[in-house]
Amino acid sequence: MTPSQDIPPGTVSLADYEAAARPRMGENAWAYVAGGSADELTIRWNREAFDRIRLEGRVLRDMTGATTQVELLGLTLPHPILMAPIAFQRLVHPEGEIAAAIGAAALGATMVVSTLASVSLEDIARAATAPLWFQLYMHYDRGFTHTLVQRAEAAGYRALVVTVDASVSGLRNRQQRAGFRLPDDITAVNLDGMPRPTVPPPGPGESPIFRGLLEGAATWRDIADLVSATRLPVLLKGIMSPDDARAALDCGVAGLIVSNHGGRTLDTLPASIEVLPRIADAVGDRVPLLLDGGIRRGTDVLKALALGARAVLVGRPCAYGLTVAGATGVAHVLSILRAEFEMAMALTGCLTVADIERPVIWSDDRPPRS
Amino acid sequence: MTPSQDIPPGTVSLADYEAAARPRMGENAWAYVAGGSADELTIRWNREAFDRIRLEGRVLRDMTGATTQVELLGLTLPHPILMAPIAFQRLVHPEGEIAAAIGAAALGATMVVSTLASVSLEDIARAATAPLWFQLYMHYDRGFTHTLVQRAEAAGYRALVVTVDASVSGLRNRQQRAGFRLPDDITAVNLDGMPRPTVPPPGPGESPIFRGLLEGAATWRDIADLVSATRLPVLLKGIMSPDDARAALDCGVAGLIVSNHGGRTLDTLPASIEVLPRIADAVGDRVPLLLDGGIRRGTDVLKALALGARAVLVGRPCAYGLTVAGATGVAHVLSILRAEFEMAMALTGCLTVADIERPVIWSDDRPPRS
Amino acid sequence: MTPSQDIPPGTVSLADYEAAARPRMGENAWAYVAGGSADELTIRWNREAFDRIRLEGRVLRDMTGATTQVELLGLTLPHPILMAPIAFQRLVHPEGEIAAAIGAAALGATMVVSTLASVSLEDIARAATAPLWFQLYMHYDRGFTHTLVQRAEAAGYRALVVTVDASVSGLRNRQQRAGFRLPDDITAVNLDGMPRPTVPPPGPGESPIFRGLLEGAATWRDIADLVSATRLPVLLKGIMSPDDARAALDCGVAGLIVSNHGGRTLDTLPASIEVLPRIADAVGDRVPLLLDGGIRRGTDVLKALALGARAVLVGRPCAYGLTVAGATGVAHVLSILRAEFEMAMALTGCLTVADIERPVIWSDDRPPRS
Amino acid sequence: MTPSQDIPPGTVSLADYEAAARPRMGENAWAYVAGGSADELTIRWNREAFDRIRLEGRVLRDMTGATTQVELLGLTLPHPILMAPIAFQRLVHPEGEIAAAIGAAALGATMVVSTLASVSLEDIARAATAPLWFQLYMHYDRGFTHTLVQRAEAAGYRALVVTVDASVSGLRNRQQRAGFRLPDDITAVNLDGMPRPTVPPPGPGESPIFRGLLEGAATWRDIADLVSATRLPVLLKGIMSPDDARAALDCGVAGLIVSNHGGRTLDTLPASIEVLPRIADAVGDRVPLLLDGGIRRGTDVLKALALGARAVLVGRPCAYGLTVAGATGVAHVLSILRAEFEMAMALTGCLTVADIERPVIWSDDRPPRS
Repeated sequence: MTPSQDIPPGTVSLADYEAAARPRMGENAWAYVAGGSADELTIRWNREAFDRIRLEGRVLRDMTGATTQVELLGLTLPHPILMAPIAFQRLVHPEGEIAAAIGAAALGATMVVSTLASVSLEDIARAATAPLWFQLYMHYDRGFTHTLVQRAEAAGYRALVVTVDASVSGLRNRQQRAGFRLPDDITAVNLDGMPRPTVPPPGPGESPIFRGLLEGAATWRDIADLVSATRLPVLLKGIMSPDDARAALDCGVAGLIVSNHGGRTLDTLPASIEVLPRIADAVGDRVPLLLDGGIRRGTDVLKALALGARAVLVGRPCAYGLTVAGATGVAHVLSILRAEFEMAMALTGCLTVADIERPVIWSDDRPPRS
Repeated sequence: MTPSQDIPPGTVSLADYEAAARPRMGENAWAYVAGGSADELTIRWNREAFDRIRLEGRVLRDMTGATTQVELLGLTLPHPILMAPIAFQRLVHPEGEIAAAIGAAALGATMVVSTLASVSLEDIARAATAPLWFQLYMHYDRGFTHTLVQRAEAAGYRALVVTVDASVSGLRNRQQRAGFRLPDDITAVNLDGMPRPTVPPPGPGESPIFRGLLEGAATWRDIADLVSATRLPVLLKGIMSPDDARAALDCGVAGLIVSNHGGRTLDTLPASIEVLPRIADAVGDRVPLLLDGGIRRGTDVLKALALGARAVLVGRPCAYGLTVAGATGVAHVLSILRAEFEMAMALTGCLTVADIERPVIWSDDRPPRS
Repeated sequence: MTPSQDIPPGTVSLADYEAAARPRMGENAWAYVAGGSADELTIRWNREAFDRIRLEGRVLRDMTGATTQVELLGLTLPHPILMAPIAFQRLVHPEGEIAAAIGAAALGATMVVSTLASVSLEDIARAATAPLWFQLYMHYDRGFTHTLVQRAEAAGYRALVVTVDASVSGLRNRQQRAGFRLPDDITAVNLDGMPRPTVPPPGPGESPIFRGLLEGAATWRDIADLVSATRLPVLLKGIMSPDDARAALDCGVAGLIVSNHGGRTLDTLPASIEVLPRIADAVGDRVPLLLDGGIRRGTDVLKALALGARAVLVGRPCAYGLTVAGATGVAHVLSILRAEFEMAMALTGCLTVADIERPVIWSDDRPPRS
Repeated sequence: MTPSQDIPPGTVSLADYEAAARPRMGENAWAYVAGGSADELTIRWNREAFDRIRLEGRVLRDMTGATTQVELLGLTLPHPILMAPIAFQRLVHPEGEIAAAIGAAALGATMVVSTLASVSLEDIARAATAPLWFQLYMHYDRGFTHTLVQRAEAAGYRALVVTVDASVSGLRNRQQRAGFRLPDDITAVNLDGMPRPTVPPPGPGESPIFRGLLEGAATWRDIADLVSATRLPVLLKGIMSPDDARAALDCGVAGLIVSNHGGRTLDTLPASIEVLPRIADAVGDRVPLLLDGGIRRGTDVLKALALGARAVLVGRPCAYGLTVAGATGVAHVLSILRAEFEMAMALTGCLTVADIERPVIWSDDRPPRS
């Protein structure tokens, strides 16, 4: 990593990046990036749940040939850490998603580009030197959504990540209190030309939530249609129920992302890492599982893999790295996390990601692992 | 909702209303409204218990036709949120219960008018444009109590809510420390003309608690008599024991309100939401259950319904809304809660209140819901 | 109770007395009275354990004839609240144990007078108008101890409470840090004339703890001897083990006090209220159990009785009352606690202390009480 | 113990020594000595786990002949408290390990001398008047490591403690943030002349963690070789897995130290005291177990022995004693801990270390101990 004058001394962990980003970001962007839904309990739980999980240290194993490499939906990745979709990255850095893509590529990390990127998906694809995935919202206008899919395919994106847990916008009290609004020069450029929904306003006594927003929302049928309509693997992001995981398999999806949207949609959803084992039980080996929500340490990556994930996505910390030092900051954040993950593998005696299984998690009463 | 200059910017949740109300209320009224019994542990637990409950997020369900409508004791309510009885509302706003009734009616919320209202029950009934219920204390003078019942019937109240958990006044240390007293111009006007109890003062060594107060308190027989004496449905408020719930059914009550009186009577009673499932097990479908205590978020409404309540009552937050902006404030508080409840239904895939059942609650070890 | 100018306004709970006492007491006495062993975890747990216990509220019971009266070792007490033994009470008030005895008697509370009282046991007996018990340390000089017993018998004390959990002095770090020492004019006057122990000092490398102190400490044989040597009932104070409870019964004791010495001896002993149920299981109905440690609310008294105690002892709060307002303060502290206890009985539907049994404690999963 | 003007008044516990040491140490050394890995959760858990364990107090046992003496690997120790290996002790006191050895010997405590001592192992041995053990890192150059072993044997060390849990250096964020570096005059003198590793630097995209560091790390074969090559008993330090414990027995080790390296290697390893029972179950009586991590009170020593340890090691508190008052401080720290341990034995009725078994630990639901 090229040293950067922008990175303050002592910025050695993802938490340090968060602390460094806040004053550089301003309250408006901070409310948007760091905030979540309602009382932000789920945000807190995402972290606390990881912190509660303990590891079984192992010693004296021969670690010759150790590697973090992982296979995922046809890609061979150098490590199982992806950059989660984040909207409007120009809010925190003038080069926005372009810088992020350069930073992620420097670490060989797959970046998931948001539909709501503040740079066109084609421009991002041109800047990136590592594989990209495209995150998709199913918009009212299914035709426009299909056009987006075709653009992503044409630009060389390698998978589609459909966000399914945001049928209504989350209750963003922190944003509301801060009076958050997007600056005029930052827009969802990928949606330029999208027809506006033509839902009539709610009548007196009618629900503004149920009317309008929900009636155009995607359903399982839309997912099945999408799977048929694209040659890319389709992942669903936002699965927090074993029943929904099973329904998704029936639609032919290629992977699932266990996620509570970083605590930004429904507050008091459980921590995603707490949900992962039940989803893993429901899905078995049929499709790979990914997880986001609260990953801040290499040990968290290890824990997620031990509990059933094939890979993880990291969101806000990348935004903090971008805020602090652009592409260099993103790359530094990812390199810290990767190095920590390697240390965690070494100190739990895991030579490869396939070795990272349930016995890595300490349990007070588990029978011996042989 | 008409915008109001009284509502400070950023007042977007019930917690914000609490914060805004405190300085507007003064310490005397604050001690009365916000305070509870002894160390106020039950008040804290009421909130913590809701916050601990996690939800199972669901996605991609077709939400066409979603509605919060609920049937309750012969009424069709637009949503399951009622305004709990609060005494002496003129303490916090000059128009007191009149303003509250107007605000509640604006949201179609049933207001439960307190016996200890600072406005006559008839005046409130005249102001209200939505159904009202009447909260009743069983006074020493049973004849006077009967007169109150007749007045409530005559004024068009639709149900009687008998508060049964206050046979002795709670241990209001916070009020005592603040030296709380009612201003001279605020009185329980509905009790004008009530004969004073004629219990002799306790002798030396006799208990001031047991003597006097208790000997005139209501018993199960009084409830049975009341049920016979009125054509209105009778609900008991303050049930925290499955055995008492069964006894109440034997008296012919039409509904039960699981409540610890907002933590104002006996400290270290459990959170009402923790008690609800055992009461629901005891009562089954025989009468509807309601719940109050700690409801501050739409997710709390959803959780209460999932655990056995047909509807919920909200008290202090309405008083905070009344303090801040009169009728508008009450209506805003209720509209926030309703909108949050709708979001919670949408993000857990519940189309109607009948869909809100136990599987909505996340459990780490539950078998799959089909 | 006579109002006292010494009691600050708003002093309405035992916690208020603690807050009022601290500045009046000075750091030296505060370290002695309030402090405990080592990190004072047991002191904290004594309170937290009570606070965690929840009550099952009951309603609409006919409370005619309610009473707190209790039978205990031949005495009929107006309520089950005793004053625990506290050494050197002249540290906090010039009239010391005399004032305490007057205050306790005003509420009909049995005071347990400490061997280490700063006033002679005979003078206290003369001042008291309610029954007294005498707390006894088994001193090296068994003859002197026997003389103390005879003096207590002669002075009309009604029971002996042998403190058995202080074979070595506790690790009073708070006292050590404060440099605590008794003022010259405050002494254990009841021990005047007691022969000093003649144990040789420990040699090099020998343990100052094990040598000397322990070799003269009391054993089970001494208890059996004491029971034979006095006509008074003998209680052991400091029992925290079911096995020790059984051994005590074999020695013929008349009662047991479950106590961790207010957290003053061995830190990380469990809260006494947590130990009580196991002791109650071991002892059954053979002798009455008492409990001290952390009682600060009437609900705590109720909880202790529900879990197996016949009565409770209250220590530090009495010392705080004594500090603030002498006899009046002690009486006020006890009257607050008694009134709170009556409220707790009323709101859990308990007519007599015999009604206070396990079902009073809320349990999430208990089968119904009939 | 000779009183020392260096010890501030009120320094009566190990926590007091920590508080006194911090300002005397400076931030550089403080980050090194007090700090741990990543978020230092394991450091916190080491303490919290001890604090959660409760003791069953026992009374009235005849304690004649009580002793803390213990047999360990051929040594008869006056008490089961050893001084853990600490690198570079001249960081905190000019006489470093020499002073520590004198202080430890004053209490008869076995000191485990670190390979990374800032004084030569021979000089320490000359200064010590009590048995010493030698802590060993298995260095890349196995020949140099063997030379170290021979030097330790020649200098009279009585056992070898091989640290096996540091195959990669821990993630010392606190040190990194403080910019920690060793002063120029403090070096690992025992390693003078050690050949530097000749591992090539990692290529682009290669892992700096896995490459280089790990490929020279010790494996089980090296342990077996060491056991064969020395006449000293070999202990492994850093065992946190029952499976590793069994593997160690197969290599012929003489003892195991359950340790998470004081929270300095992999964060979110469990507290060592939580791991001890499962290791004890795996090992049985085949070799003695020792434990370090979080011992700050005599009750902690008792708890560790009750849960399966034969002895404990204390690290940071000795460094704090050394900082504050050199040899005197180390001795005072150890004497405080020993005295507290004796009090804990007395108040739980343990006459010898063999009496310290599981029933000493309080359990809410344990059947009676006979």
